[in-house]
Amino acid sequence: MREVAIIGIGQTPVDEHWDKSLRELATDAILQALGDAQRDRVDGIFVGNMMSGILSRQENLGTLIADWAGLRGVEAFKVEAACGSGAAAVHLGVMAIASGYMDSVIVMGAEKMTETSMAETTAALATAADADFEGDHGVSFVSLNALIMQRYLYEHKWKHTDFAQFSINAHENAMGNPNARLQDRISVAEYRTARMICDPINLLDASPTGDGAAALILVPLEGLRSNGQPRIVIAGSTAATDSIAIHDRKDGLWLSAAYTSARKAYGQAGIQPEDVDLFELHDAFSIMASLSLEACGFAERGQGPRLALDGEIGSAGRIPIATRGGLKARGHPVGATGVYQIAEIVQQLRGESGKNQIPDARVGMAQNIGGSGSNIVTHILKSV
Amino acid sequence: MREVAIIGIGQTPVDEHWDKSLRELATDAILQALGDAQRDRVDGIFVGNMMSGILSRQENLGTLIADWAGLRGVEAFKVEAACGSGAAAVHLGVMAIASGYMDSVIVMGAEKMTETSMAETTAALATAADADFEGDHGVSFVSLNALIMQRYLYEHKWKHTDFAQFSINAHENAMGNPNARLQDRISVAEYRTARMICDPINLLDASPTGDGAAALILVPLEGLRSNGQPRIVIAGSTAATDSIAIHDRKDGLWLSAAYTSARKAYGQAGIQPEDVDLFELHDAFSIMASLSLEACGFAERGQGPRLALDGEIGSAGRIPIATRGGLKARGHPVGATGVYQIAEIVQQLRGESGKNQIPDARVGMAQNIGGSGSNIVTHILKSV
Repeated sequence: MREVAIIGIGQTPVDEHWDKSLRELATDAILQALGDAQRDRVDGIFVGNMMSGILSRQENLGTLIADWAGLRGVEAFKVEAACGSGAAAVHLGVMAIASGYMDSVIVMGAEKMTETSMAETTAALATAADADFEGDHGVSFVSLNALIMQRYLYEHKWKHTDFAQFSINAHENAMGNPNARLQDRISVAEYRTARMICDPINLLDASPTGDGAAALILVPLEGLRSNGQPRIVIAGSTAATDSIAIHDRKDGLWLSAAYTSARKAYGQAGIQPEDVDLFELHDAFSIMASLSLEACGFAERGQGPRLALDGEIGSAGRIPIATRGGLKARGHPVGATGVYQIAEIVQQLRGESGKNQIPDARVGMAQNIGGSGSNIVTHILKSV
Repeated sequence: MREVAIIGIGQTPVDEHWDKSLRELATDAILQALGDAQRDRVDGIFVGNMMSGILSRQENLGTLIADWAGLRGVEAFKVEAACGSGAAAVHLGVMAIASGYMDSVIVMGAEKMTETSMAETTAALATAADADFEGDHGVSFVSLNALIMQRYLYEHKWKHTDFAQFSINAHENAMGNPNARLQDRISVAEYRTARMICDPINLLDASPTGDGAAALILVPLEGLRSNGQPRIVIAGSTAATDSIAIHDRKDGLWLSAAYTSARKAYGQAGIQPEDVDLFELHDAFSIMASLSLEACGFAERGQGPRLALDGEIGSAGRIPIATRGGLKARGHPVGATGVYQIAEIVQQLRGESGKNQIPDARVGMAQNIGGSGSNIVTHILKSV
């Protein structure tokens, strides 16, 4: 199995890009990444995207993006795993390089969510749930997460306010990230009084959607020169699933797919949770940040909010999370999110994160969640 | 790079399955394939599907199918490359095994097309074209293929009737395939007088859509015992793209992505076109059968119909095609088609094709086309 390195990254700002179509956003990210890697051609492209068929009436998206970005002829595929589509595309690209079938690939995510009405977008997002047994009952993604959070508050005896630091930390970090959608500081008072969306989830528990695209260039590590920069390797690349519907889980407060994929990733990378210098987790809702920290071994069960309250998730804490704003403040263009997470870790490992820089970061972990925890992809990056 | 073997296949009949949902069809194919392989667990599943988001309001399809088929926990992804989605899923599964990341996978395709109105299904199929520059002008997939066929008739001076043998051969072969949608013999007279769909394409030039699912079990060849059956290896697995829009091609009558992916596949397998014992090609429309034969080296440019007229595409001919009915008569549940093609080749190499058996078949080739030739995946199978 060949080791895989990341030699280029590209990210568009996450925003309402009314002047750019999906293909244009994707091309912007690709050209940035190719420029960063000083390459002009790859063997294949893997595009993570969830909703282009529904929201843009465009399938065959891999082909379209390859064509539009000037890469006509290369192998091209769209990969879908709901909101985990981006990291899923990275994972499949890693296997393409590791197998020897390809010597260079673009792995990317792209999503266009703001050209349609909020109702259409919300309905499209609900296709990540079980259409027959959840979607048909009118469930939305906020409501599924609200069910989980409500139960968590009851079981583990936290108050809603105890989750404030997840959002405050994310917003604080986003102010150092020019690609972030929400670059404003928020207070505990603002968190407590934010508009209710779906009890107990309020506006400041939820990540904003948006349009965006991010891309990485992968090549085999072997033979790669460092050129003065640290070489970044993908030391762990894994995925796992759970039941698609939350009512089918024995325990709705345990992300078993996060646990399984993280444990596999630690094994591949030969590390323990305490070796991780930063963790880009899937804080689509604040409850998900807590559950991820628990499933991945950074907090005991039911104790995720404790880490946040103790300041351990900040840049000087035990496990810095959402270091460039996370989903909560960088934004969550769903199929692209998993690739933003990894691009942000590359910036940390390169020491290019400005005021968000985690000192001496050598190991970063990213976890991207599809559905209500049903499809979870974990990556561990190291600088070598 | 590990060599990859196919040890199990499953196929549902292609039909209007009004009593079965997408997940049920997929599960039927998976259970058949697992039974055939005498396995009950795999490391991952790759689901080729084009339109579940639009037609069934269901994304996160890999997770759903893994869950429903009793494989909760395994890695699961949906792969989309328009009508080439099925073979694309196979290709990515091959890389997963070859890389060493997985030791067993299900690669499959599933599509449900008959629960929605013809207008909805036709519009969904058009998402394989360029939404902004083709789809928005009202183009459908029949009309794109009609443009190509019209030009072909003009350039190469064939009459429409000269294509009759492609459809007659496919229908003849489907009568030996219990999974085929159209199991009836047709005559030249019926072909000539069939209802016009989009000039010059008539009803008997076009493949029927349908609901269906097909699955394969892949494992490393190394250590695999033959158990009295020939071992079937994937000796070539490749893809290539062209412009998504046909107006962007220098030559609309040349499938450059078919040429490129076939040439790469011949190279991987160490064979020439004359070594291929049967060719499951993408005869979604009769013109596509002709163009594939030409691009893959079985006919000179413009001479595809000659092969058909000379009887060379039949089971005793130089290059048997559509040996179990092809898209034209087995049917074309789009995201599943590429997997049916490969399952049918496995049956031929195992000698399990009944009255359709190609004597002493040792090498089979499958080619699955997404869009109007924009994304083409080629596989070569050998018995060893």
